[in-house]
Amino acid sequence: MELAPFMAPKHVEQFKALVKEGFYDDLDFYRVIDGFVAQGGDVSEQKTSQHNHTLKAEFSRPAPQNTSFLPVQKPDFMAPETGFLAGFAAGRDPASKQEWLLHCPGTLAMARSNEANSASSDFYIVIGQATRHLDRNMSSFGRVIYGMPAIQALQRADINNASGVIDEPSKRSKIKWIKLASDVPANARLNVQVQNEKSEAVSQRLASARTLDSEFFHFKGNGNLDVCYYQLKSRLLSQ
Amino acid sequence: MELAPFMAPKHVEQFKALVKEGFYDDLDFYRVIDGFVAQGGDVSEQKTSQHNHTLKAEFSRPAPQNTSFLPVQKPDFMAPETGFLAGFAAGRDPASKQEWLLHCPGTLAMARSNEANSASSDFYIVIGQATRHLDRNMSSFGRVIYGMPAIQALQRADINNASGVIDEPSKRSKIKWIKLASDVPANARLNVQVQNEKSEAVSQRLASARTLDSEFFHFKGNGNLDVCYYQLKSRLLSQ
Repeated sequence: MELAPFMAPKHVEQFKALVKEGFYDDLDFYRVIDGFVAQGGDVSEQKTSQHNHTLKAEFSRPAPQNTSFLPVQKPDFMAPETGFLAGFAAGRDPASKQEWLLHCPGTLAMARSNEANSASSDFYIVIGQATRHLDRNMSSFGRVIYGMPAIQALQRADINNASGVIDEPSKRSKIKWIKLASDVPANARLNVQVQNEKSEAVSQRLASARTLDSEFFHFKGNGNLDVCYYQLKSRLLSQ
Repeated sequence: MELAPFMAPKHVEQFKALVKEGFYDDLDFYRVIDGFVAQGGDVSEQKTSQHNHTLKAEFSRPAPQNTSFLPVQKPDFMAPETGFLAGFAAGRDPASKQEWLLHCPGTLAMARSNEANSASSDFYIVIGQATRHLDRNMSSFGRVIYGMPAIQALQRADINNASGVIDEPSKRSKIKWIKLASDVPANARLNVQVQNEKSEAVSQRLASARTLDSEFFHFKGNGNLDVCYYQLKSRLLSQ
């Protein structure tokens, strides 16, 4: 997962501190709803940690003067404008001058109760159809850049269970451990390369998508792009 | 999976004939791209069948006078109008008077080559962010109503493999068998109940989604709904 301190600095700081102390190790994905999110953390509130504090919401940020936001779609279905921001699918509102990260598949965000400033350590990863109604409602602080197939294979809650909480701990997929890449020896680290949104490859992909210019497509669309579908791709480099 | 003969009668007819003769049994999901589709069928073209014909495209249909299309969103990001049609997420164009099924997670459609009228037996299931650029470009003929977690757990192609074709057969997830529910004894059949789009439960869910009226939501959205996220839900009834 790549973290987004530029958007949610306090969430990233706390998540890293919790990871570093092994807070998440041996916990599990206790709420997993197919087509929605996989949520992990300390559902039984058994762990104590000096780092597990309630966080102030970081749903969006004021766009800095020199923002690197790269527009892709205007207007978007759910936002005045969408595009990329430092490698993440993002939204922007020229009126309020706010920027935020979108809820696309792979987005990492902190769970919370109804209260905006109530997130602490339980997190979720979007595993379904973009849950864009959560945009500007949750503190998104990262995204999965490698390993979504493993996340998609996590044990789901029973189809009849609307809450999605898997009551029986033995039926939950475990979090063996979470580590910071910087704490893994270089020769054991995955070498993941992520597309740069300013690259020729990305701009060609988007241009081609706007007109569906391959001969495969007989209906040529309306020119609108769902940036969640065009997230920046990753590949593994050899060590 | 529920089939959609009202939209793609020839595709449904051929798929059922192939299923009935066991055409798909012991084949595999040979092209699986995380966030996109899981494609199954006879990649090595080893099977012969009197039912495996090239099909004329059934991308959309002229809306009948008495269409049961239930509008949800107008305009939609990728279509003049979206809603439900006989239990399926669907699109509609008042200008051309065409209706079609949307590419939402769980949508079942026939694969094809560049030529529109080239589908025969290889099929795919949408497993990712709605691939709406495929709408009106493919013959969608059904959807998964139970079992998406199993589809989501299928073995993916390597992240560096852009084509998504898993070359090594032993690395592909197998299709043990496909059966028509009508050929399964009643006491061995899954009893799946699907929401009716005209029910109070669905209309309440959509109304609540439009205004994000729960106190969980602090940003109340813009009123637009992505019908792919609000697909009709299923549950298992006891036998």
